[in-house]
Amino acid sequence: MVYDVIVLGGGTSGIGAAIYAARFNLKILLLTKAKTGLIATTHVIENYPGIKTATGPNFMNMFYDHLSVYKDNVETVEEEAIDATKKEKNYIIKTSKGSYEGKTIIFAMGSEHRKLNVPGEKEFANKGVSYCATCDGPLFKDKLVSVIGGADSSAKEALFLTQHAKKVYIIYRREKIRPEPINLKRVEQKVKEGKIEIINNTNVTEIKGEAFVNKVILDKPYKGNKELELGGVFIAIGWIPKSDLAAKLGVKLDKSKNIIVDRYAATNIPGIFAAGDITDDPFKQVITGTAQGVAAAFGAFNYIRESE
Amino acid sequence: MVYDVIVLGGGTSGIGAAIYAARFNLKILLLTKAKTGLIATTHVIENYPGIKTATGPNFMNMFYDHLSVYKDNVETVEEEAIDATKKEKNYIIKTSKGSYEGKTIIFAMGSEHRKLNVPGEKEFANKGVSYCATCDGPLFKDKLVSVIGGADSSAKEALFLTQHAKKVYIIYRREKIRPEPINLKRVEQKVKEGKIEIINNTNVTEIKGEAFVNKVILDKPYKGNKELELGGVFIAIGWIPKSDLAAKLGVKLDKSKNIIVDRYAATNIPGIFAAGDITDDPFKQVITGTAQGVAAAFGAFNYIRESE
Repeated sequence: MVYDVIVLGGGTSGIGAAIYAARFNLKILLLTKAKTGLIATTHVIENYPGIKTATGPNFMNMFYDHLSVYKDNVETVEEEAIDATKKEKNYIIKTSKGSYEGKTIIFAMGSEHRKLNVPGEKEFANKGVSYCATCDGPLFKDKLVSVIGGADSSAKEALFLTQHAKKVYIIYRREKIRPEPINLKRVEQKVKEGKIEIINNTNVTEIKGEAFVNKVILDKPYKGNKELELGGVFIAIGWIPKSDLAAKLGVKLDKSKNIIVDRYAATNIPGIFAAGDITDDPFKQVITGTAQGVAAAFGAFNYIRESE
Repeated sequence: MVYDVIVLGGGTSGIGAAIYAARFNLKILLLTKAKTGLIATTHVIENYPGIKTATGPNFMNMFYDHLSVYKDNVETVEEEAIDATKKEKNYIIKTSKGSYEGKTIIFAMGSEHRKLNVPGEKEFANKGVSYCATCDGPLFKDKLVSVIGGADSSAKEALFLTQHAKKVYIIYRREKIRPEPINLKRVEQKVKEGKIEIINNTNVTEIKGEAFVNKVILDKPYKGNKELELGGVFIAIGWIPKSDLAAKLGVKLDKSKNIIVDRYAATNIPGIFAAGDITDDPFKQVITGTAQGVAAAFGAFNYIRESE
């Protein structure tokens, strides 16, 4: 069968797209590696207007529960897309298990954690090196840990870790960390309480340990020492959009590999749309990504109507 | 005092803007005629991803409850804005009770119901003529009523009215009503059940009655008669954006009086943003309007940071 829409990615943007496409009475395949998004690994969501507060997993459950209303129109398959090709007017998405044909594609696969690329990072993965404080934080009870990075997400990781760790060092290569003001305030409070210490203008050049991480090497001395003893290293230096398959279909990316979309979530190729963290939207929020998914569904609906 | 942001309008777009502006630690005045939006008059909201279903009033309550978290940053004043002027770099918004100064403005006042402009419409307002089925529907128990208009909102009004009225006539000036496919299906089902009857290619030219509406005059005969006996007339022919104050400040509108915004909810005037039903977004949904509010808050935050 030929689907009207293949939505790639089962995060909130993909679900938003699937819900709306179903409301347009289209036939949808939601193809996702796992029924989750990056947001499910978040400790708490408090910035989706209308939902005051929810844990990451509960938040995702609300979306899947909402999606279940449209089960007559939406088929959800948990497989990873590994190839994308064009077939006449349609598109073929291949997974390790099969291949699927769609009239339109909505890319909503989000992004993956950027690697630090220093010695020890790979070696100590899951042995003290983590990319997700909310996933692994509780394992670091009463330890000294660090969060590498200075963005809002780094601050949130650090704040979460203060609940478990003895102390959290934020190590940032630039002059001053730059979280959202509300989180900056919270970090400053934790600095006063001695739970967070910020090391600016500094890079980690190596992660060392034995069975488990026990220190990092800094590129300049901190309190007279280039070695910092640590029981855990959380790397929070950004994301790389999962845009390779889109690029293979000729979709234009920006220099950070984000899919370039217009106001209506349309890419440069008619019938191909993108939504959420995979796009070049400079302000990547759950609410804005979900709205992009909805706009993409509207775009797909119009595209199909006009081409028939 | 000078507010960082004056948000005009207390619907979901305005609240989304206020929540995010507060998260940016800005000082916000939320100025609204009433703590409500057009959405509060909606029977049921089932298309805001993550919230499976909610009545209009409950949905608005969830937003105001969420907003209450940020009460240190957001002052909510229930007054109607009646004038807007520029004062050096800032803006002054006047109400009947006072005036307020802000560094930035976010217009999120939505739109009002378009009038049919036929004889009897004004005379029988609240005497059988209504613009809101969910507000007034229950008053028309077991009566014959009509919904004038063919858009998705008209279909939703008609569907809602079938719960109360004996029969609902949808009267539409064009060839074929054009609701969302999911609602079209529902209307077709109700047609089969004899609860809805559709009269296409027809205009209402006059509304007649005595103390209360008792008929409308059509511009062409329906079943051999230009008079249609009715106990109620619901007018659902669209909205007019409340963009007059924005226009007064030099904000560009399209020919339907919508505020023209870019992808980031920015208008042609730096420091002035717009979100929701008041904008030229062709697909006006709660989710997309709320996301525009959030984008507007981000724009206001950046504008203030850059101008300081």
